[in-house]
Amino acid sequence: MSVDRLIDTEPVIATAGVEVLQKALLDQAAPTGAADWRPPAPGTEDALATLAARGTTGPANDLAVQRMLAVRPELAGIGVARDVIPGMTDTTFLHAGPPLTWERSSGPIRGALIGALIYEGLAADEVEAAEIGEWGGITLSPCHHHQTVGPMAGIVSPSMPVAIVRNAAGDGVAYATLNEGLGKVLRYGAYGPEVIERLQWMEAVLGPVLAMTLQKTGPIDLQTLIAQALQMGDDGHNRNRAATSLLLRAIGRGLIENDAEPVDDRAKVFEFIDRNDHFMLNLVMAAGKLAVDAASGVPGSSLVTTMARNGTDFGIRVSGTGERWFTAPAPVVDGLFLGGFSAEDANPDIGDSAITETVGL
Amino acid sequence: MSVDRLIDTEPVIATAGVEVLQKALLDQAAPTGAADWRPPAPGTEDALATLAARGTTGPANDLAVQRMLAVRPELAGIGVARDVIPGMTDTTFLHAGPPLTWERSSGPIRGALIGALIYEGLAADEVEAAEIGEWGGITLSPCHHHQTVGPMAGIVSPSMPVAIVRNAAGDGVAYATLNEGLGKVLRYGAYGPEVIERLQWMEAVLGPVLAMTLQKTGPIDLQTLIAQALQMGDDGHNRNRAATSLLLRAIGRGLIENDAEPVDDRAKVFEFIDRNDHFMLNLVMAAGKLAVDAASGVPGSSLVTTMARNGTDFGIRVSGTGERWFTAPAPVVDGLFLGGFSAEDANPDIGDSAITETVGL
Repeated sequence: MSVDRLIDTEPVIATAGVEVLQKALLDQAAPTGAADWRPPAPGTEDALATLAARGTTGPANDLAVQRMLAVRPELAGIGVARDVIPGMTDTTFLHAGPPLTWERSSGPIRGALIGALIYEGLAADEVEAAEIGEWGGITLSPCHHHQTVGPMAGIVSPSMPVAIVRNAAGDGVAYATLNEGLGKVLRYGAYGPEVIERLQWMEAVLGPVLAMTLQKTGPIDLQTLIAQALQMGDDGHNRNRAATSLLLRAIGRGLIENDAEPVDDRAKVFEFIDRNDHFMLNLVMAAGKLAVDAASGVPGSSLVTTMARNGTDFGIRVSGTGERWFTAPAPVVDGLFLGGFSAEDANPDIGDSAITETVGL
Repeated sequence: MSVDRLIDTEPVIATAGVEVLQKALLDQAAPTGAADWRPPAPGTEDALATLAARGTTGPANDLAVQRMLAVRPELAGIGVARDVIPGMTDTTFLHAGPPLTWERSSGPIRGALIGALIYEGLAADEVEAAEIGEWGGITLSPCHHHQTVGPMAGIVSPSMPVAIVRNAAGDGVAYATLNEGLGKVLRYGAYGPEVIERLQWMEAVLGPVLAMTLQKTGPIDLQTLIAQALQMGDDGHNRNRAATSLLLRAIGRGLIENDAEPVDDRAKVFEFIDRNDHFMLNLVMAAGKLAVDAASGVPGSSLVTTMARNGTDFGIRVSGTGERWFTAPAPVVDGLFLGGFSAEDANPDIGDSAITETVGL
């Protein structure tokens, strides 16, 4: 900049990182330019300088984001986990978050695995199920390694019905279990008789009825549905009342017309979804999984493509480093507790549902 | 106020009516009190002074508002206008807004009356219908005189199915037609074959199917439904997507279970409502009518209980003056027009739907 320009023109003030300075200038209508900058974490300075000098991160991130935004998720159908999820076997049990062993797993994961073993008929009771877990009678694998996501414990066992969410604008499929509702449910680690009975009903009735209904309706455009729901007060993670309402609108006619199946079953399916505003959560998660998988594996991209917790570890994955996990201990969430419980009763953070935040919801 | 207080204490600044002064003081954290005041309309000073001196308006308005807020509207059923609406006869045709004659009525009202006469089988065609209108072969009466409200032309003829909205917390019933959707519809004054056929389908299928479904579901709490919808981006008048979604949730199970009626009819009913986000408008209007009727007739109350237009006049009614209308020419709305049309093509304002604004939506 020549000295003349400094003297002859209005100064423009540059700020870096500290928003309050930028805001004070804007409030005074001063011409200003803000750099989106923050200090590097201690110890990362050299690595960041190398990356910055290379100059590939920006274009790589543009490409990764572009791939993510190009995805158009649609609910294409309902299948059975063992039939549709890549890499499932009769003894594969998927779980939330980064890789985990029975030994390192927390109460909710073990509880949900016990429940799933009983549900699958592989164990008669809690004791037998825990023994199977301990001697390694089942293969544990992260949902995220199988184009799948699961809320909380995120256990997906072979017989469970799963939503098939397809990219209508290209390749890619993602899967998620169907949401059980609130209260005593497998994903919180509960495995009492009512939990197992609900899972059996979901397998025998909910899955098949929805599968047949979706054949009547055709694929449901989740992109449009979620976009509308966000404008109607949903956050796509903990509030999904609008999205669940719009989903029921999308399948209602199909449920009425689907008269190959008993009226009572179809009425129960409508009611089950109507009574559970979290029903859409799992579908939003699958839509998110489709988006991050599309953005994964772009060389040089620093875009975070996974944030997921297994109740023991918190793991992230980054586009440029592909399948590699970076983990740290899962934190205890500073949350509200039901009466009589406190942070001391809490399990460390758990679930793949942070996929919603990963895609920016 | 003693002079000592003026000197010894912090001054508190009073403002009257002009919000910008009040706001400037608040921004400076100055102690301030605001009077909700505006200048009287020219010529009303003496009357207002008399009312103010009497001191009864405030308590009367409190009572009227209290009665309005105590109403709990619920959708109790669907009936046929001639069977349920007080004062209906086989030749009574209700219309929107204040009282009106055929001679003074505008295009949309005449068009809708012609359509309704053809629909009722009282006229074979447009010419015959207009003749009946001209010689006074039908009795015109405002919806508002019959516990009823109708959007736009607001024509209610004897055979039409109507929603029955009841006060779950006391006395009172209100009625509204079922919304026809957008495009060529009776309430805009259209009377072509597709309009008449749709009305016939609504009478033969929509009304009976919904009536039977509501017997299955029981009454639907409109208070809760509308309150939620307002938090989901609806305004209750021109945007009713959330409310219509929640209504479909409320009746979906009933439509599936209601297997006394043909599958195709029930599927068509679900689809008809699903394709028309204005469906809930008429029900919100009936809920509003219930509220204003409860607030009407409180001596001394200046609460406006009706704002309605018939395409010629704009009329209001006030609680303290009960059934009496105060009218002025209906204005032409400053709105957006479909391509090729302008304000010159517009009819003056029309419809009872301003009931939504009357109750504060």
